[in-house]
Amino acid sequence: MTQALRLAINGASGRMGRALLTLVREDRRFELAGALVSAGSVHHNTPVFPELPVSLRYTHDWSAMTADVVIDFSGPDGLVEALGYCTAQRAALVTGTTGIDASLQARLDQAAQHIPLLHAANFSLGVAVLKRLLRDAAVALPDWDLEIVEAHHGRKEDAPSGTALALGDAAAQARGTNLEKDAVYAREGRPGARRSGSIGFAVVRGGDVVGEHTALLLGQGERIELGHRATDRSIFARGALEAAAWLAGRTPGSYAIDDMLQARLSR
Amino acid sequence: MTQALRLAINGASGRMGRALLTLVREDRRFELAGALVSAGSVHHNTPVFPELPVSLRYTHDWSAMTADVVIDFSGPDGLVEALGYCTAQRAALVTGTTGIDASLQARLDQAAQHIPLLHAANFSLGVAVLKRLLRDAAVALPDWDLEIVEAHHGRKEDAPSGTALALGDAAAQARGTNLEKDAVYAREGRPGARRSGSIGFAVVRGGDVVGEHTALLLGQGERIELGHRATDRSIFARGALEAAAWLAGRTPGSYAIDDMLQARLSR
Amino acid sequence: MTQALRLAINGASGRMGRALLTLVREDRRFELAGALVSAGSVHHNTPVFPELPVSLRYTHDWSAMTADVVIDFSGPDGLVEALGYCTAQRAALVTGTTGIDASLQARLDQAAQHIPLLHAANFSLGVAVLKRLLRDAAVALPDWDLEIVEAHHGRKEDAPSGTALALGDAAAQARGTNLEKDAVYAREGRPGARRSGSIGFAVVRGGDVVGEHTALLLGQGERIELGHRATDRSIFARGALEAAAWLAGRTPGSYAIDDMLQARLSR
Amino acid sequence: MTQALRLAINGASGRMGRALLTLVREDRRFELAGALVSAGSVHHNTPVFPELPVSLRYTHDWSAMTADVVIDFSGPDGLVEALGYCTAQRAALVTGTTGIDASLQARLDQAAQHIPLLHAANFSLGVAVLKRLLRDAAVALPDWDLEIVEAHHGRKEDAPSGTALALGDAAAQARGTNLEKDAVYAREGRPGARRSGSIGFAVVRGGDVVGEHTALLLGQGERIELGHRATDRSIFARGALEAAAWLAGRTPGSYAIDDMLQARLSR
Repeated sequence: MTQALRLAINGASGRMGRALLTLVREDRRFELAGALVSAGSVHHNTPVFPELPVSLRYTHDWSAMTADVVIDFSGPDGLVEALGYCTAQRAALVTGTTGIDASLQARLDQAAQHIPLLHAANFSLGVAVLKRLLRDAAVALPDWDLEIVEAHHGRKEDAPSGTALALGDAAAQARGTNLEKDAVYAREGRPGARRSGSIGFAVVRGGDVVGEHTALLLGQGERIELGHRATDRSIFARGALEAAAWLAGRTPGSYAIDDMLQARLSR
Repeated sequence: MTQALRLAINGASGRMGRALLTLVREDRRFELAGALVSAGSVHHNTPVFPELPVSLRYTHDWSAMTADVVIDFSGPDGLVEALGYCTAQRAALVTGTTGIDASLQARLDQAAQHIPLLHAANFSLGVAVLKRLLRDAAVALPDWDLEIVEAHHGRKEDAPSGTALALGDAAAQARGTNLEKDAVYAREGRPGARRSGSIGFAVVRGGDVVGEHTALLLGQGERIELGHRATDRSIFARGALEAAAWLAGRTPGSYAIDDMLQARLSR
Repeated sequence: MTQALRLAINGASGRMGRALLTLVREDRRFELAGALVSAGSVHHNTPVFPELPVSLRYTHDWSAMTADVVIDFSGPDGLVEALGYCTAQRAALVTGTTGIDASLQARLDQAAQHIPLLHAANFSLGVAVLKRLLRDAAVALPDWDLEIVEAHHGRKEDAPSGTALALGDAAAQARGTNLEKDAVYAREGRPGARRSGSIGFAVVRGGDVVGEHTALLLGQGERIELGHRATDRSIFARGALEAAAWLAGRTPGSYAIDDMLQARLSR
Repeated sequence: MTQALRLAINGASGRMGRALLTLVREDRRFELAGALVSAGSVHHNTPVFPELPVSLRYTHDWSAMTADVVIDFSGPDGLVEALGYCTAQRAALVTGTTGIDASLQARLDQAAQHIPLLHAANFSLGVAVLKRLLRDAAVALPDWDLEIVEAHHGRKEDAPSGTALALGDAAAQARGTNLEKDAVYAREGRPGARRSGSIGFAVVRGGDVVGEHTALLLGQGERIELGHRATDRSIFARGALEAAAWLAGRTPGSYAIDDMLQARLSR
C-alpha cells in the first residue's frame, strides 16, 4: 500500500465509533486524522487511547484537521457537519447515519455532485454479497420456491429482520414482483398449500445470536441454500473501513456497497 | 438370525402396504405370511409380485394364514379384523392406523392384555430418537431458549407439522410446562422481545421436501442444533419393520417406538 | 408454449434414458419423436411404455424419425450416431456422454459449427447456479477463507467428489489461482495453521445421501455458506430437458449449462 | 437464591480468570471471596476492578480468605496450592488446569475423599450435553453411519479437534468399539466404499470460527444431525461457574460435568 489514507471518524465516541477506532489502530491502510464528537460532548478533549502513548483527543473542532475520507456514524446533525467539511475539503464521505429525512437526503444528493459519497444501512460485506447472489439465483431458477429464514437474539423486537426483508425485496424485484404482493410472513394452523411464486419468511429468536439469514431456493429433487452468519458486531465497522478505502479518491457521485462489489467483480 | 418371523401385512395394497412388501422381499428377518386387503378390494386374489415367480396373492381371508406378527396400515375397520386375528392367534400387532376413536382405543387396550401391541403415529426411528434427545437436552439445559424449525413440500396444508408439535410438546412436558401455555407459532411485525421459557416455531414450505425438523437450544455464546431430515418416505415402512422384529415374542402389553429405543439403550 | 418440440432420446433404455422418458410423458414442452438404442440392443422394437396405449417402440433406426432436438446419454459410439443425425437434420444436440477422447471432441467441435450443441458432465441446474454464485463470492470477498464440504452415500469410492473439485476449480480460477497450487485435501494430526489463500476440502460419507455440497467463505466475524442438496437423481434428467428446451432453435455453436443461466440473467 | 456462595478464583489474572471475574460481578449466586495469583505475580496487590469502587486486590495469600468453592485455572503449581486450601477448609474445588501428571492426579484422587472435586478439560455445557446425546443416538441407531464434522479458525494447528475426538470416542465406546479400530481421519483420491461401522471425521478451517461440531447419523432415507456451535469463548467461564454452583456443598468425591447433567436429568 502506498500512502496511508487520512481518516476522520465522526460520532467517534459512540458504539460504532469506538469499534472503528479499535480497528483503525491496527489497519495500515489508514492514518487516524481525527475523532469527532458533537459540540456538547463530554468526551471533547479527552484522550482517544488513554492507554497508549498517543496524543489524539476527541474533538468537536473540524477546522484543525486534514482528512481524505470521513466515516460518519453520528446522527443527522453530525452528518450535516460532516457534509460541510467534506464538500469544502473535497474529502470522501462514508455514512451509516439513519433517520435521514427528505431535506437531509437532498443535501446528500447535492454533495454527491462534488464528492464521492457512500450511504448504507448495513455495512456487512457478507450481507451485501448474499443479496447479489440471491438476486442472481432467483432469476436463474425462476420456478424454484423461495423462502427466507432468519435468527436473532431474544431481545430483538421486530420480525422478520430488516435484512431479511431487504433480501426478500431484492429477490422479489429481480423476479419482477414485490413483497407487498408475494410475501408470506406467518404460517399457522391451516394455511393451505403454498402459493406458487410466494416468498415465505420464517423467524427464530433466542440466545445471543448476532444475526443469521438463509435464503432457500427449493426445486424438485434439489435445492440451494444461501446463508450468512454474523458472529461479531465488529463486521459493520470492518465493512465501513473497506468502503472508506475503496471510496477515497473516486469520482464524485452517490455510491452503495454493491458498487464496491461490482467493481471487484468487473476487474 | 435364527428363524425368520412369519409376517402378515394388513392394508397390503395401500401406499404403506406396498412399501412394506417391497422391503420385506429383501429382508431376511421375515417370511411373508400374508398380504391382506379389505373384503371388497379389487386386489383380492391378484398376485402380489406379478413380476416374480412367487405364488402369493392379495387376500381378504385371514383364516388360512399363520403369522407371528401383523403390521397394519389399513384403517379402523381393517384394524378390528387384525385385532381379532392377533388375539386369537396370540400374534404381535404393529399398527399405524389413524383416526382411532374411543371405542376402538378401548379394544386396543383390551387386546394389549393378551398380545404385544405397538401403535404409533410416525414410524420414523430418526424422529423417535430426536424426540428422546430433545427431551434430555431441554432438561439438561433448562435456561436455554428452545425453537423448532420445520420444512416440508409446498403441498402440505397445515403448519407447524404434527411432528414439530409433537417435538415441542415432548420438550415442554420435560420442562414441566405445555404448548398451550408457552408456544409461539408466528412472529410478524413487532412481536417484542422473546418471552423467557417460550417455545417458538418457524415454518418453511417449498419444493418437494419430504420433511425436516430442527430443534435449536440457544444459550449465551453457544447453542445446540438437533435435526432430522427425511429424504424418502420409505423410512416409515422401515421403521414399522424394525418395530415388528422387536415386538414379536414380547410379553403382552401396549408399546411405543420409544420402548424399543429404551430397550436398545438399556442393553 | 406454442408448438411442442420433437424430442429424441438416445441411450433411451439406460438409467438416464428411462428417467427422461418418464419425465417427458408429463412435459408439454415436448413431443416424443424417438427412443433410440444401440444396434444390438435387446430393447430394439419393444414398446417404450408397455403399460400405456402408445405405440412408440425402442429402435436403433434413426432414419424414420424427425426430431428438433436430441438428448444423448448413450456413450461414445451412440454419440457418433447422434452427431451424424443432428448435423444432417440440423437438429440441436444435448449430450451428457462421458469418456470423450480427443478425436470425438474434434467431431463435437466441428458439429458445433453447424448445429447448437450442449455438452455437460453434470446437468443439475442447482449445481450450475451454485458454481456461478461461488465464483462471484470468491471474487467479491477475496480475503475470505474458502472451504468446500461435500457429503455422499457410503458406496462412493472417490473423494472429494468431481462436483466438489469442479466448484473448487471454478473458485480458484476466479481468484487467479488453481487447485494444484492451493488445494488442501486432508487435515490430520498436526497440519499447522491454515495457509492464507488455500482451498480446503472436507468429505462426509454415509447413508444414502444423493449429493450435497457446501462452499464456506469464512471472514472475520461473519461468513457465507453456499449449499446445494440433491435428494433425487431425477434432477439430471430434468436439467437435460431444460437444456433441450433452451437449446432447440439457437444459433449453431458450442454451449454449456452456464450459457443457459447467463441467458436467463441477461434478460 | 438463599445465601450467595463465597467463591475464590485461582489463576485470576489469566485469560480464564479474567473472564470469570467479569461474569461473577453480575452473578448473584456468588460473592467474590478472593482473586488468587501465583507468588511472584506482578498482579499481586493490584486492584481487581480498578474502574469500580471495590477494594478487592489480586493476592497470593490464601490465608486471609474464606471460600465455599474455588475455581482453578492456574496450572499444576497453582492447583497444588488450591488443593491444600480446599482440603484444609473443606471447600469445593472446580479445576480446568491441564497437564496433570500421575503424581498430581494421585493428589486429586486423595483430595476427592475429603472434598467435592470436579475436573474437566472442556467446561462448555453444550459440548457436554452433545456428548450425552450422541452416545444415546449411537446406541439407539446402531446401524446408522456416524460422521463428525468440525470447524475452527485458521490458526488451529491440530486436526481433528480434541472435542471432535472426544465425541467420536464417546460414540465408539457406546457402540462397543474404539477410534483406534474404526476412525477414518481423511479421505482423498480413491479411498473406496465406506467401511460399515467406521467413524469418519471431516475438518474445516478458516475465519475466526470459535468452534463447531456436528455429528451426523446417516441412515437409509433419513438422518440425524447433532450440532454444537460456540460463538464466544466466555462459555468456558460460564460452564465453570455452573459447575461451582452445583458442586458446592456436595458429598466429597470426584465429579465430572456429566454428573451435573445427570443430576439435572434425574430430578
